[in-house]
Parts: sequence; structure tokens; C-alpha cells
Amino acid sequence: MLDRMGIATESNAPLYLRIAANVTQQVARGVLRPGDRVPSLRRLSQQHRVSLTTALQAYLWLENRGYLEARPQSGFYVRTPFSTLIPEPQFEGTTTKPMSIGTSAVLADIMEAASNPHLIPLGAGGASPEWFPSRRLNLILRRVIRRDPLHSMRYDFPPGLEALRRQIARRSLDMGCNLSPRDVTITCGALEALNLSLRAAARPGDVIALESPTYFAILSSAASLGMKVIEIPTHPQTGMDLGELERAIRKHRVKACITMTNCHNPLGYVLSDQYKKDLVELTARWEVAVIEDDIYGDLAFQAPRPRTAKSFDRKGWVLLCSSFSKILCPGYRLGWVAAGRFRAEVERLKLLSNVSTPALQQMVVAEFLQSGGYDRHLKRLRTMLAGQVDRVREAIAKYFPDGTRISRPAGGYMLWVELPARIDALKLYRAALAENISILPGTIFSATGRYRNYIRINCGHTWSEAHDRALLTLGRLCERIA
Amino acid sequence: MLDRMGIATESNAPLYLRIAANVTQQVARGVLRPGDRVPSLRRLSQQHRVSLTTALQAYLWLENRGYLEARPQSGFYVRTPFSTLIPEPQFEGTTTKPMSIGTSAVLADIMEAASNPHLIPLGAGGASPEWFPSRRLNLILRRVIRRDPLHSMRYDFPPGLEALRRQIARRSLDMGCNLSPRDVTITCGALEALNLSLRAAARPGDVIALESPTYFAILSSAASLGMKVIEIPTHPQTGMDLGELERAIRKHRVKACITMTNCHNPLGYVLSDQYKKDLVELTARWEVAVIEDDIYGDLAFQAPRPRTAKSFDRKGWVLLCSSFSKILCPGYRLGWVAAGRFRAEVERLKLLSNVSTPALQQMVVAEFLQSGGYDRHLKRLRTMLAGQVDRVREAIAKYFPDGTRISRPAGGYMLWVELPARIDALKLYRAALAENISILPGTIFSATGRYRNYIRINCGHTWSEAHDRALLTLGRLCERIA
Repeated sequence: MLDRMGIATESNAPLYLRIAANVTQQVARGVLRPGDRVPSLRRLSQQHRVSLTTALQAYLWLENRGYLEARPQSGFYVRTPFSTLIPEPQFEGTTTKPMSIGTSAVLADIMEAASNPHLIPLGAGGASPEWFPSRRLNLILRRVIRRDPLHSMRYDFPPGLEALRRQIARRSLDMGCNLSPRDVTITCGALEALNLSLRAAARPGDVIALESPTYFAILSSAASLGMKVIEIPTHPQTGMDLGELERAIRKHRVKACITMTNCHNPLGYVLSDQYKKDLVELTARWEVAVIEDDIYGDLAFQAPRPRTAKSFDRKGWVLLCSSFSKILCPGYRLGWVAAGRFRAEVERLKLLSNVSTPALQQMVVAEFLQSGGYDRHLKRLRTMLAGQVDRVREAIAKYFPDGTRISRPAGGYMLWVELPARIDALKLYRAALAENISILPGTIFSATGRYRNYIRINCGHTWSEAHDRALLTLGRLCERIA
Repeated sequence: MLDRMGIATESNAPLYLRIAANVTQQVARGVLRPGDRVPSLRRLSQQHRVSLTTALQAYLWLENRGYLEARPQSGFYVRTPFSTLIPEPQFEGTTTKPMSIGTSAVLADIMEAASNPHLIPLGAGGASPEWFPSRRLNLILRRVIRRDPLHSMRYDFPPGLEALRRQIARRSLDMGCNLSPRDVTITCGALEALNLSLRAAARPGDVIALESPTYFAILSSAASLGMKVIEIPTHPQTGMDLGELERAIRKHRVKACITMTNCHNPLGYVLSDQYKKDLVELTARWEVAVIEDDIYGDLAFQAPRPRTAKSFDRKGWVLLCSSFSKILCPGYRLGWVAAGRFRAEVERLKLLSNVSTPALQQMVVAEFLQSGGYDRHLKRLRTMLAGQVDRVREAIAKYFPDGTRISRPAGGYMLWVELPARIDALKLYRAALAENISILPGTIFSATGRYRNYIRINCGHTWSEAHDRALLTLGRLCERIA
């Protein structure tokens, strides 16, 4: 459970968090007051019989959250405005009128929610910070700064750091590709890679084919670029109906098709090699670009790592997009695209969009990949993720109304949940926000207002009592709003 | 008419300008020589029967343009290199109509050139790495990593780090604005700020008004977004013809206008407060967005720091864009926009484009700004830059053919050079590349193929023998290709 400061206090919470909770309780009970010095690290470690490191971790966490402040050569002190840090209600269940929310309002909520640490984050796709290899990345970061103090004092230009592109090319063998460093353009995350691909392959007014459901951001992005989208009927286990795709191409002169063949967001499937081959051959025949979003491809639960559609690309019509955000470090904003015949145009658009991706993070990830350890980390992350997805599935099965259906993802972070038809997911979404739980309503995954009784649940956070309770609450809300 | 110094001498010119012209004529006729003290302010005001203020205005204008120098407690003197000062580029009026623009191979060259360390970099706008405060930034970087090891292990969302937005808001007072942190959205450099502004204020097919010449990247970007541009006749010293701008707005339903009112790239001017006020009032009347690119505003050579058009914005139609790339660290890719009434849409588009700007660099710059030292650094950089610009001007004047005109920038990195009409700048550009010298040809600064005999020279690099030789070579190439 969470105490009133929002700190997990279950017995399975990390040690340092339990110590931190103990400190906040002392403040709540008036034992410690704003301005008071808290026990020294040595004292704290003795009190709780933990290492100095764990004690420091607890204080740093509290400092980070604004509960404590560090004073040089003196110690940690309770911060003066402590009492004002108690959560304020930020969202109100505005049960005003039924309206077909556009994606925009939900997107604004997602941004708003991100700055609210009191939300149980089952919405936006992400993982707990502690799942990422921050210690090793920081070590390399310090090394890079020391070795090249002028790392950020010049402009770099597309396609991006050669050392990183070389590592990506090397790893592309696992995807069934054989990229050269020159094939790769570095971007600010996979979303930028998708955007640049879209702009390189199509113009305002052109028609884009999409899976349904599909990743909501690219849907809104295509709309804001003045492109039209057509949703291709998509089977939740076996992907787009390729016959329908071909009909759409013939009828609507589709210019590009966006697809996730591995660990689909939100459906969770990994499609067969035969499907990928058929898709690439079909689109090449019609000279339609395929924008392949492989951001979760490394997170397939089963070995071997699945191939990409790009691996069947002989004519350069596939633009393969990915990133390090789901595996190493979301905040680095590092992605890439192997854009085939659209490479030069993608590089030009990258230059015109924001000149380049920061070099510093590129240097760090290049070195991380080169020095090994990526695969070891990946294996651990995959195992955690698979366990986590199972846990959340079980809780949903336990708490949600009869008739609920849940995807069985072959990889990635997401569960796609079909609620009984009577339940309006948008209502559930709003009611959940009012209870400090964020989820994503199904409608934003479609341009046609479909998936009114679907939600997407992100499973990328360390399981806790709080998550269990949140899912219980969601289940009850389903009944209440039905 | 203009005299040979490029000073307007019509009877309807402001009084101080007519006095200034009179002074330059005395120099031209040899009455005053380099090193001579010009009449005192009191004397000048008596000679022309004007107020002391007007007399001072005339001398400041002349100083600003490099005709005079002020010596403390002594007075104003004719500057030594006065005789080498050559005329500034002239105004050419044109009839304007909106048009779609083609793309430019020069951009690909720019990217290619960037990875060639053997080029003398007079092309892309940038400064020598050693001009930037890398040591202090790296110190802060290490501190941030130590203090917040999980700095990059989470997603941040627009509008960006609050601590940085607070510092930007604080500094906005110098720009005549009074922004709050909530007004600011952090971007990947100013170019992304411009792109997001453009997409928020206009749609594919809409017409955008631009200065002519204008920053080439935004020209190509608008084209790639399917927007049409109309170039407004722009005086090389006094900016866009606002009458023409209004005519264009009325005739073509212009949706947005992109402008650089301070340290214009490539023209170098700083426009008057009155102009800025008029521009804002005019566009607000027609509900046209003003995208103000103030990236060089902090680099005006004269104190005080010039105001922005945004400072006159009462109705939220101005989107003020800037960055830290020209002053602190180009490779951080940190920019921002205060988007007025377009704020929510800019944030949405930022999320859809690449989710967010990396947090790490935001933390570092926020701390740099907060800890002071920015102004000290800025002052040093401005002085270096002003000296550098002078040096390059003198070398051009010495080596380039008769009839060459050079801008007299009031700030920033750039010189805008008008070559004799017989010289094709694109030919010069190619011949220069073959000699390992990069410059930018004038044509890329216009959508209408103008400026065929213009080049832009970047002065942001520490002067060396090699630069002098490169300018000598350029001068000779001018003759050879003519």
C-alpha cells in the first residue's frame, strides 16, 4: 500500500524506500519538523541495520522528491515547505456531457499526467527507472565527458554519430538485416524516425494505410501533416488483412503503410516471417513505402529475436524505425531509421527539423553497445517484463467484469483489454483519472472512433500493492459506470 | 538616394540620419581623416541647430555602423579602417507572389561538408568550440549526474523542465517581455521551435510571409510542409516593407509571418522598437501569427540588449523562438518558444514530433543560468564576435573585386556580401568547395532564385592565417569565374 506521502511501504518494496517511508512518517507525526536535521547517514544505517549506500539511497530519494534538502558539509534537513507537498487533487471527474473526444484532449492529459507523481501510471508506455542500466550509462557518460570535453561544442549533422550507426548496423543482423552504417540515420527517438519517414514517403494530401488499432501518436501526427489515413482491418493475432491492404492501395493510391510487425502496440502480436515477406512483396509491387516501427522488437519474450519486414526488403521501400527508449534510457531520446531509398530525403528533413540529435547521448550509447552487456541487460529486462505482463493479466482477470478479454502479448509492455460492450472506455478513463490512475482509452488508437470499449494498460512498472489496488479500483469502476 | 556609404540622404530621412550622412561626406571629401576627433556633441548640435539628443543619436548610429569609435572621456573619432569600409548591399524591390519552392542540393553539401575537417568553415553558422564555456558546463554536467543518477531514465513531456523554463522567463525581461515559466516550451534547438510554430500557426496549403533574404532552413521546411511562401521586399537596413506586408496579407490571406528583428540572418540589422511595435499591431489587426526568430538577439554588439517584437505583443499572436546554440553549446540542441495563443498546439506537436527534449542538457543549462556567469560569458563572446566580424569585413574589402558591398551587422555571426552582378555566387560556391572553403550561396536564402550574386560568410571562428588566405582565395576566385 501507499502511505499518505505516496511511498510504497509493502514488505516487498526496496529497502531504501521503506526507510524513506519511515522518515516521512516521522515528519507526519511531528517527530521531525521542517528545518530539522535528519539523522546522519551512519546513524540511519545503524538504526535500520542497512549499508551506508542504502541509507544514502533513501535520503537521495527523499531529496529528489523534495522532502529533504542537502546542506553542504552539514547533512540532510527536512524541507521547509514540507507540509505543502501533500498531494493536491489535480483532476476532477468532469462527467459533463458525452462527447467524442478527439485525440488532442487525451494527449494533453497524458502530458499533464506525466508531471503528476501521484498517478499510478498504467497509461503512457514506459518502465520504472530502476529497470534501466543507469549506473553503467552514467559511468560511460562521465568517461565521455572526461575524454572529449568539447563533446557538445560543435554542430553535428545528419546522419549522426558514425560510432553509433556502426553499432546499430552490427545489431541489425539479429533483425535479419545486414545494414551498413551509411544506411542508418540517428533521430530524437523512434517517434521522430516515424515522422521523418512519413514526411519523406508522402506529402500533405496523400493517403497512408495503417493497422487498426495503431499507435496513437503517429495517427495524430499524420493528421497534423495534412495526410489522410485509411485503417486496414487487422486481426488481433495475425495482423492486417493483406487482401484489404492491396484493395486500398489500388483504390486510394496509398503512398505509405505504417506497420508494427513485432510486439505490436497495442495488440502485442509478433507476425510470421511469411507475412512479413508477403507484405514487402505486395507493397514493392505497388511502389508503396512501408514504415516499420520495430521499437519493441528486441522485447519479444521468446528467442530468437524476430526478423523484421525490412529483412525481406530488396528494393528499398521499407523504412525501419527503432530506438533505445524502451530498453536503455527513455530520456536520452535516441532513435534511428534505416530509410532505404528515402535515406537522402530523411536526412534532409532531419536537418530541417532540428539540425541533429545531441551527440553526447549518441557517444554514450555507442560505447555501451560496443562494450557488451546490452544482451545481458536485454535478457533480464525481457524476463522481468514477461513476468510483469503475466501479473497484470491475472489481476485484470480477477478484478474486471465477466466478458473482459485481454491480449496475450508475444513481447513488449502493453496489454490490450476489451471490456464488455456496455462499458464506455472514455468514461472509465475519466473516472480512473479522478482516482489517480492513468490508463489509455481505446478510441485514441483509431481515426474512426472505434474501440470505444477498449483500454490499453502499460505493464512496465515494478509490481506493487498499489498496482494491484489500482486494478481492483479499475474493475470496480467498470461496474459503476456501466 | 543613397550616398556611397549607403546612408539615406533624402529630405524625408530622420534628422539624425541626415546629420550622419553629412559626417560621412566630410570623411569622403577628406575633411575628416581616420583618427580625427569629430566635433563634440555640443558643437554638432549647434552646427545643425538640433538637440543634443539628436546629435548623440547621429554619432551612435555612426558608431554602430563602424564609422566612428567612442573613446572614454574623450569623444568620438573617425575609425581607422574607415577608408576600407565599403557600401552595404542595396535594396532591390520586386513584385511578389506566393509560390511553392523546390528543394536545394546545397543542403546535402552542407551536411557533407560538416564531416570534412579540412574545410575552412565560412558556410554554416557556428563558432569555434573554444568560444563556448565547455569547462563550466561539464562541471555542472558531472554534478547533475551525481545528484540525480536517474536523470534520463524516465519520459519527460512538453513543455519541458520547469527549472529551465523559469530561467528563460527570468531572462525574458531583457527582451522586454515578462514571460512566466508556463509560457515557454522547450525544443530541440531554435529550428525545431520555428518548425513547431509554423505547424501550429498554419496548415499545408497556407501562405507564409517571409523576409527576403531569409534563413534558408525555414524556407525549405515550409516547402516540405506543403506551405507556400511569399517574400516581402526587405530593406537591408530597415527591414520588411510593412506596407507590402499588409498588401500581401490582404491579397493572399497570409497565415503567418516569419521575421528576425534582431541581428538578422543574413542581413545583420537590428530593427527599431517602433518597427517592432508597428509590425505587431499590423499583424494582430489581421490576425496573422508572427514567428519571431530571436536566436542572435543576445549577440547584438551594442548595449542595451534589443527588445523583441514579442515585447509589444498584447494578443498572443507572436511566437518568440530562440536557443542556446549560438551562445552556450550548439550540440546540446536546446531551444525554446514562447508561443502565445498557440502554446497548447505547439506542446501537442512537440509531443507528436519526438516526445520531448532530453532532460539532461536542460538540467545543466538551467543550473548554468541560475548560478550566474551567463552575462559575463555573453559580454566576452559579443566582444570577440564584433572584432571577428570587423576583421573578416576588412579582409573582404581588401581581397574582393571592386563593386563588392558588405553588410554592417549590428550583431550576430554573419556577413552578407553582394558581389558585382557579373559574378555567379553558385559558381563561386562550387569553386570554393574545390579549394576546401565552404561558403553559402545567396540563392538558398530566397525562394525566387534571387541573390545570385550574393554570398553569406560566417565569422564565428577564431581568426587565423588560414582564414585570411581563404578570403584571399575567394577574392581571386571571384575574378577567375567572372
